Amino acid sequence: MTAIETRNAHTVEVGYDEFCGALAARDLKSLWSMQTALMPDVPLPATQPWLWPWDTTYPLAKRAGEIIRIERGGDRRVLAFANPGLNGLPFTSTTLWGAIQYLGPGETAPAHRHSPSAIRFVMVGSGVYTTVDGDACEMEAGDLILTPNWNWHDHNNYGSEPMVWFDGLDLPLMTTLEAVFFENHPDERQSVIGHNLSERAWGSAGLAPANATDLNPAHSPLLRYGYAHVDERLEALHDRDGGQQATVEYVNPATGGPVFSTLGCAMTRLYPGDRTPTRRKTGSSVYVAFRGSGKSVINGTQFDWGAGDVFVTPSWAAVDHVAYGQADLFIISDAPVLKALNIYREIVEAEAQPVNSVFQAT
Amino acid sequence: MTAIETRNAHTVEVGYDEFCGALAARDLKSLWSMQTALMPDVPLPATQPWLWPWDTTYPLAKRAGEIIRIERGGDRRVLAFANPGLNGLPFTSTTLWGAIQYLGPGETAPAHRHSPSAIRFVMVGSGVYTTVDGDACEMEAGDLILTPNWNWHDHNNYGSEPMVWFDGLDLPLMTTLEAVFFENHPDERQSVIGHNLSERAWGSAGLAPANATDLNPAHSPLLRYGYAHVDERLEALHDRDGGQQATVEYVNPATGGPVFSTLGCAMTRLYPGDRTPTRRKTGSSVYVAFRGSGKSVINGTQFDWGAGDVFVTPSWAAVDHVAYGQADLFIISDAPVLKALNIYREIVEAEAQPVNSVFQAT
Amino acid sequence: MTAIETRNAHTVEVGYDEFCGALAARDLKSLWSMQTALMPDVPLPATQPWLWPWDTTYPLAKRAGEIIRIERGGDRRVLAFANPGLNGLPFTSTTLWGAIQYLGPGETAPAHRHSPSAIRFVMVGSGVYTTVDGDACEMEAGDLILTPNWNWHDHNNYGSEPMVWFDGLDLPLMTTLEAVFFENHPDERQSVIGHNLSERAWGSAGLAPANATDLNPAHSPLLRYGYAHVDERLEALHDRDGGQQATVEYVNPATGGPVFSTLGCAMTRLYPGDRTPTRRKTGSSVYVAFRGSGKSVINGTQFDWGAGDVFVTPSWAAVDHVAYGQADLFIISDAPVLKALNIYREIVEAEAQPVNSVFQAT
Amino acid sequence: MTAIETRNAHTVEVGYDEFCGALAARDLKSLWSMQTALMPDVPLPATQPWLWPWDTTYPLAKRAGEIIRIERGGDRRVLAFANPGLNGLPFTSTTLWGAIQYLGPGETAPAHRHSPSAIRFVMVGSGVYTTVDGDACEMEAGDLILTPNWNWHDHNNYGSEPMVWFDGLDLPLMTTLEAVFFENHPDERQSVIGHNLSERAWGSAGLAPANATDLNPAHSPLLRYGYAHVDERLEALHDRDGGQQATVEYVNPATGGPVFSTLGCAMTRLYPGDRTPTRRKTGSSVYVAFRGSGKSVINGTQFDWGAGDVFVTPSWAAVDHVAYGQADLFIISDAPVLKALNIYREIVEAEAQPVNSVFQAT
Repeated sequence: MTAIETRNAHTVEVGYDEFCGALAARDLKSLWSMQTALMPDVPLPATQPWLWPWDTTYPLAKRAGEIIRIERGGDRRVLAFANPGLNGLPFTSTTLWGAIQYLGPGETAPAHRHSPSAIRFVMVGSGVYTTVDGDACEMEAGDLILTPNWNWHDHNNYGSEPMVWFDGLDLPLMTTLEAVFFENHPDERQSVIGHNLSERAWGSAGLAPANATDLNPAHSPLLRYGYAHVDERLEALHDRDGGQQATVEYVNPATGGPVFSTLGCAMTRLYPGDRTPTRRKTGSSVYVAFRGSGKSVINGTQFDWGAGDVFVTPSWAAVDHVAYGQADLFIISDAPVLKALNIYREIVEAEAQPVNSVFQAT
Repeated sequence: MTAIETRNAHTVEVGYDEFCGALAARDLKSLWSMQTALMPDVPLPATQPWLWPWDTTYPLAKRAGEIIRIERGGDRRVLAFANPGLNGLPFTSTTLWGAIQYLGPGETAPAHRHSPSAIRFVMVGSGVYTTVDGDACEMEAGDLILTPNWNWHDHNNYGSEPMVWFDGLDLPLMTTLEAVFFENHPDERQSVIGHNLSERAWGSAGLAPANATDLNPAHSPLLRYGYAHVDERLEALHDRDGGQQATVEYVNPATGGPVFSTLGCAMTRLYPGDRTPTRRKTGSSVYVAFRGSGKSVINGTQFDWGAGDVFVTPSWAAVDHVAYGQADLFIISDAPVLKALNIYREIVEAEAQPVNSVFQAT
Repeated sequence: MTAIETRNAHTVEVGYDEFCGALAARDLKSLWSMQTALMPDVPLPATQPWLWPWDTTYPLAKRAGEIIRIERGGDRRVLAFANPGLNGLPFTSTTLWGAIQYLGPGETAPAHRHSPSAIRFVMVGSGVYTTVDGDACEMEAGDLILTPNWNWHDHNNYGSEPMVWFDGLDLPLMTTLEAVFFENHPDERQSVIGHNLSERAWGSAGLAPANATDLNPAHSPLLRYGYAHVDERLEALHDRDGGQQATVEYVNPATGGPVFSTLGCAMTRLYPGDRTPTRRKTGSSVYVAFRGSGKSVINGTQFDWGAGDVFVTPSWAAVDHVAYGQADLFIISDAPVLKALNIYREIVEAEAQPVNSVFQAT
Repeated sequence: MTAIETRNAHTVEVGYDEFCGALAARDLKSLWSMQTALMPDVPLPATQPWLWPWDTTYPLAKRAGEIIRIERGGDRRVLAFANPGLNGLPFTSTTLWGAIQYLGPGETAPAHRHSPSAIRFVMVGSGVYTTVDGDACEMEAGDLILTPNWNWHDHNNYGSEPMVWFDGLDLPLMTTLEAVFFENHPDERQSVIGHNLSERAWGSAGLAPANATDLNPAHSPLLRYGYAHVDERLEALHDRDGGQQATVEYVNPATGGPVFSTLGCAMTRLYPGDRTPTRRKTGSSVYVAFRGSGKSVINGTQFDWGAGDVFVTPSWAAVDHVAYGQADLFIISDAPVLKALNIYREIVEAEAQPVNSVFQAT
């Protein structure tokens, strides 16, 4: 028998091709022919670093507002940020869904519930409330609203202007886990029990209602996080610590953990100065530039951003930021998942990464 | 051999007295002679229900202010509420220390630290700050200030009036656990890094500083809980739920758990109406009547209370309350200990307990 | 403007096609055109129920033993069970990797480590040890060996017969999480510190080494679970409870949790009788028929199995089993992931599912 | 006004005595007069280091066997090790009850349950089983049997020789927590469901019954820990690590935590050699010398011990050991309580403590 060379340097013997054919016919795959792709030295993300500029997405969202009606069967007017690395899937990363949602004056996005959990971060507009299991959460620019796993929710614009918000969901992960359930509410709008109820019950730091019955290990009982509080905390942290960057995490006040088991939120405020240290972490993040402008280097490519832009960082990407003035970046990530599974890693590189190219949006 | 009867109905034989003597001489005790006392059907607390009226304690605290100087070696001007059931120990219950502390204008209670954890609940006065590991926490009536396990703390009255606050400590429990450590600070006053720093970092519900370095599983990183927030939350809960009673728990915003591993705090607001349901729970509580007046029935004895009064409920006591107007009761308890050890029990009695007597303060 | 109908019943207006083109060009996707696929009422798994018969896989594994040499660059002689629903990926489900590994007499599969965690369940053979961070774990038929996240491991056949084992990994999940790291050991074989060390330290129920330094929240410190113990426990449970099914979970003795944060193992023993109740759970499982024979109904299709067969159940599949004699099914699942994220659901159907077809292996 | 000196160096003014009288009359205590006693620099245990020799306790236990009958109202023939520092209380330390129990041939200690949790460590004898909620746990020398919080238990000697075991309870702590409940079983002996059931279900390391219904966060589901396993593990640890001391902790296999929330158990095996390092930890321990002989230095006093002797170490005591041959010390401690409350401290002294005296038993 004569030895032959395979692509990945294995010494195999005659009959190999026939053998491979037998495997293929029986739903078997040989590991040795693809070990490097399956087990790279460091993560080899399918997710690509990418940016969607507000100048593009906002006009398209407005246009959708003109030509798409919201109704049962297609309950939401949503444009998803589809990562070009994911083979046409409408996902921003392998675990995170990012999208822009547009709700015109007088419109209602009808009530439903699903096992994927969602956050809504208001980009522009006011005069909207999202009802979550009876609690009408008022939405203003910069506010974060949670619509957790299996909570009924509908969105209602009672104002005179459209609202645009960023939707962040764990849907790609839930799809991989094959754990997506969905149900329409019998009514277009569920009954409103009261306004900002969760905030009224849980809205002071370190004070919890006794014998709370609204606790669920999967998510925060607080559903509304007003921007004014975030702004105040960021300023206080910057006053205390100085530096170029201050960050608050949105947490579950009943546990101190992330807002959802499956998705975390943070706001980082950048102050003018040098590039921040280059960091790498496992898991992906989606950034929404809420205020200000700056640039981020992701794996050697520079991404320039301004208010309303959305960008994504893949797992283990080298990432640093610099702001031209004070800037706020709202961030969702899958870090709670990696941390819950004890597989999270994070490092700070000793040196700033080189900048090799500048991203040009499509 | 002739059988004789012992006190607890055991049939024993001659030689028993000599045998008991042999045990006594060798540091041994027979269980059978005291089983009922050691193992009662339900808890048989040493702690007695008791009340210390403000009309008594405040004048004595003022008098202490005149005749006792604060200085090293006796760092605090403190009158402890000594439960008459505890054989002269200066403890309010077997696990809780309650006391009144008086700090005159211009005075400083010097810096020290200890493994027992303390809370300070301000009864009257203003213009005082307690520095806790460099964080000068401002104190006003109704505020709760934490001085946790092994944190340096000193109290400073920079105002023109005396302050009186309630001290709550886990000292009796720590004494039983033989885990009390104490250390004087080299300086009378430690350096102040800033004012209300913990509140500035942690003071908004559901927002946590990223990468916080001040976390300790034993206690909350938030050290100051202002009364205004408590008042607001209680009103909101009462608006939502109605009823005669609304309660908030002071919690650790980093975990959702109690402020200390060893001691919990709550504020319950009573509204006029009938007596609340009769409840029993394991573990003791100390109540500080902060506002309003009312009466509580504890194991069949009625305790009338008004602002400034302090009372204690032993373990498994039957307890109910009624307020004459809106009233706030601040409460410390050892429930976190019993819950951490998985031995907490709580029941609501089907019927109101009878009132057999009325407590008369000594 | 004239309304037109889209595929999913939305009423849209002229200009829609152009609008869709604009989205496509800018890496945006409209949710309304695919909401049902993304958010089905119940999970719509990509994973297909499937079975790989021993009569097929074993001869191919043997043939691989003849024609594939094991060496650096393709370290393992592994045939992966590739689910036909996953577009050619070598994964058994969206979260689980199942495979058969063949190691001939005298062979060594060289030392490496990776962030995916693996279990090895011995199907046939003896005289092999897997060294895991210096601990040479002996392998016999029915034994379970763990090679956890980032532990060095190599497999060594010092016997005279080949060994075939089942490999179970969390690799598909780790790939989705973009968290795969890999490293070759400098040597083909790492040094052996001793044999069955983890079992010697942790091998008695309820006894833990004091001050253990080998603890890691991601995985069990016990690396070897002998079949004899499993057999003994299953018999005891069946003696105690009767019924048609007894199940033990392989757990981390330091926490009582699953062997890995990302993957759980169990052995279920079936006794002859009626079909077990029809169950559904979120998340997928891979079954290895270790002993005996029987049939399982998965979403209405009957799968007949005997010793050595491997089959997979997708998320939310209706599943029941019946054995023709006493039979042992070894199972890996992603349930620990869904439980850690608080999204696990499980139900028992009121009635047995109908059987609509019988699976024929390819 | 004239300043006077108080005992602890406070400068006070005239009227002090009258003031102190007013406090005393109103159940108030001044902190300044006792601060050092209440807040010592390091723990000032009431618990005294002490030893009860087998030569004393065993004859007394036998004598109790002759003259004390076991019956309702005094259910157990128990001699408690009463620490001379605890004012006549029958407690071995402030948190731990240690005692010797004697059960003659044919005797039954009748069934009851209580909220304090107990361990039974068999010193001599065989042919006894303790039924715990229906599970008849066989007892032989060196075995550990748990009778957890609120589990029915009775002890039955069906053999021909008396048995003596060590009882360890959390009763002193439960007394301080005022959480003791007790109930007699309607029958002298509860029904036996089977023998060694918990061991049959949970008796293999790393294997847990699926869907166990006997789980309780307060205690282990495994009720019997045979000495043979302990012996085997200690030998394996010593083989692996060498040194003079090997220790296993008895743990809850469902959590990896202590056998009870309130009490931990360990066995430490000493090998001949030098004195072990001097350690201090918060919380007390009770040691039962099961095999061998040696000496321990506790706070500078040497305690010589042999098989059957029992001794106690107070909190923060300096402790070291040396064995004359291989010796086994069984230990109970309150460390789980201090750890659950996050107040546990432990240090190793840089130098061996001096030996100032030798303990002489009373």
